[in-house]
Amino acid sequence: MNRPAITPLDRTDEAAYRALIDGKAKPLGALGKVEDLAVHLALVAGRPNPSYERALLLVFAGDHGLTESGVSAYPSAVTVAMVATLLAGRASANAFARAVGAEVKVVDAGVAADLAPHPLLIDAKVRKGTRNAALGSAMTAEEVESALARGSAIARRAKDDGADILALGEMGIGNTASAALLLHRLGPAALADCIGPGAGHDAEGMARKRAVLEAAAARTAVVEPLQVAAEFGGLEIVMMAGAVLGAASVRLPVLIDGFIVSAAALLAVRIDPNAADYCIFAHRSAERGHDVMLAALGAEPLLDLSLRLGEGTGALLALPLVRAASGLLAEVASLDDVLAGRL
Amino acid sequence: MNRPAITPLDRTDEAAYRALIDGKAKPLGALGKVEDLAVHLALVAGRPNPSYERALLLVFAGDHGLTESGVSAYPSAVTVAMVATLLAGRASANAFARAVGAEVKVVDAGVAADLAPHPLLIDAKVRKGTRNAALGSAMTAEEVESALARGSAIARRAKDDGADILALGEMGIGNTASAALLLHRLGPAALADCIGPGAGHDAEGMARKRAVLEAAAARTAVVEPLQVAAEFGGLEIVMMAGAVLGAASVRLPVLIDGFIVSAAALLAVRIDPNAADYCIFAHRSAERGHDVMLAALGAEPLLDLSLRLGEGTGALLALPLVRAASGLLAEVASLDDVLAGRL
Repeated sequence: MNRPAITPLDRTDEAAYRALIDGKAKPLGALGKVEDLAVHLALVAGRPNPSYERALLLVFAGDHGLTESGVSAYPSAVTVAMVATLLAGRASANAFARAVGAEVKVVDAGVAADLAPHPLLIDAKVRKGTRNAALGSAMTAEEVESALARGSAIARRAKDDGADILALGEMGIGNTASAALLLHRLGPAALADCIGPGAGHDAEGMARKRAVLEAAAARTAVVEPLQVAAEFGGLEIVMMAGAVLGAASVRLPVLIDGFIVSAAALLAVRIDPNAADYCIFAHRSAERGHDVMLAALGAEPLLDLSLRLGEGTGALLALPLVRAASGLLAEVASLDDVLAGRL
Repeated sequence: MNRPAITPLDRTDEAAYRALIDGKAKPLGALGKVEDLAVHLALVAGRPNPSYERALLLVFAGDHGLTESGVSAYPSAVTVAMVATLLAGRASANAFARAVGAEVKVVDAGVAADLAPHPLLIDAKVRKGTRNAALGSAMTAEEVESALARGSAIARRAKDDGADILALGEMGIGNTASAALLLHRLGPAALADCIGPGAGHDAEGMARKRAVLEAAAARTAVVEPLQVAAEFGGLEIVMMAGAVLGAASVRLPVLIDGFIVSAAALLAVRIDPNAADYCIFAHRSAERGHDVMLAALGAEPLLDLSLRLGEGTGALLALPLVRAASGLLAEVASLDDVLAGRL
């Protein structure tokens, strides 16, 4: 496929942005991680005064054939129900988006049902759910390329439509199973360290999930990113990886949510390492495996609130930090100006 | 003094609020600390749908006689300069307040200069700075009562004026020194564990700060909260303790910033333990001593961003979490409604 080029961050101005912050009317380094974030944002924007008024959360939804083997405590039908809830503005992500000032759209990447058109729904369905990765490839190579291309186009269109930052979220029963397999192969990491309870499992459920994922992993030894994506899915994860790549290609910063979205970021970064420069890791999820995933990505997230919900809830909670960081650079007086009374 | 009574939280509805959250369309417990915060907020409000549209940051400013002994790397004049910066909307707290949607007012609790009237300035000056606590009592008993009463009145007036949540911040060169002494005596905690670099110190500066605070501590053995406040100050810290007590008396939740504001919260809680029920600890400061302080308060803060600036910057960054938590309770559909298609 012809993927859009991603320019690595030009770090020429990093020292200048750091000096600008150091010259602000505050003790040196006193805003900790917010200062690092401010520098990162300025480098992505290529200027010291980026604004993030128009934030867009894209929630990518898809179903997973793996659920046929019992990897999730919930049936696939919950994916459709939660898509309807998101479109009705009644999901956790909607409440959080209102709380922080972000728009929400839902992307049908591969929900296993026909969805009625809706103004907030982007129809990008590649197919109705993945095949069962425990038994064979979840997706074809063509489906992977299609998902990547659609995700990339959606992110680039968001920028054209005026978004100045993206947040990514997901809804897909069974998707911690796919994400665990992606991490296992792309981290790489021992499979046992990648598997957590997802939306919830008792000991028996966890044992079943482990056994199913061990069978899926044993089925193939692929390590090449696109092949790994095809083997293990899912449609929404691969499409989010495309969105990360597309956003990075147009220098749109992307807030990465928890375990599933981080798996998409990992896939994107393994496809094009330059994509990492445009990712802001929002939070450390409570899902087992996220620590390993963040380490594989060399990422240090902003928040640690024991979230494990998905939908982009954690990504949204980091948005105010982004706005505060950009405000630090753009709006706060220098110590020189303060001491000279130039306010 | 006749202090307004503080009603401890009525926890009768705690299980009902918890059940309401457990019934939402999301995995059980998947919003981690945000769920605990939502329950806390509902208990403070006495209803499951509180709103926090009108947030007010009060930045209390005061000077410290201890600076005469060299406890700070900055001169007291910086307090006035930063008050002017806050009033001009050019300080870090102003930028953060705009980022999260909060109003800012500055309270002159005891700045060592005459300040011109300003629409955003509340004149509550008790005196021009504290006396040098290394040499004698920082404040008289009457000054302590005056600061507490004024702080309480300011918080209660904020509620009358329509604020539905307060954030507290401070500006006062030398105030980590006062806060360290308060923690030492009210924690209690070993003095060495309470002293950090504040706005910044080299090894020599730290040695001087330690020696000065050891001398101040050696001067008196008082442990009674009001006496400790009088011995060590400062005016802005005691007035913030009054604000915590006043806010709690009218059931207004209070976002507690870092080391200094936590010292005020500690003083308030030692005066009336019921005040703790109305405090939301926003973040873990990078200032040495804050861990000890939080432990003394039994507090688990929401954020950990290596901030040590003050002004209420950390308190402001927790405000979106408050709004998200209240949105969870008030706006998110129940799983029953989702599965029944009632959206």
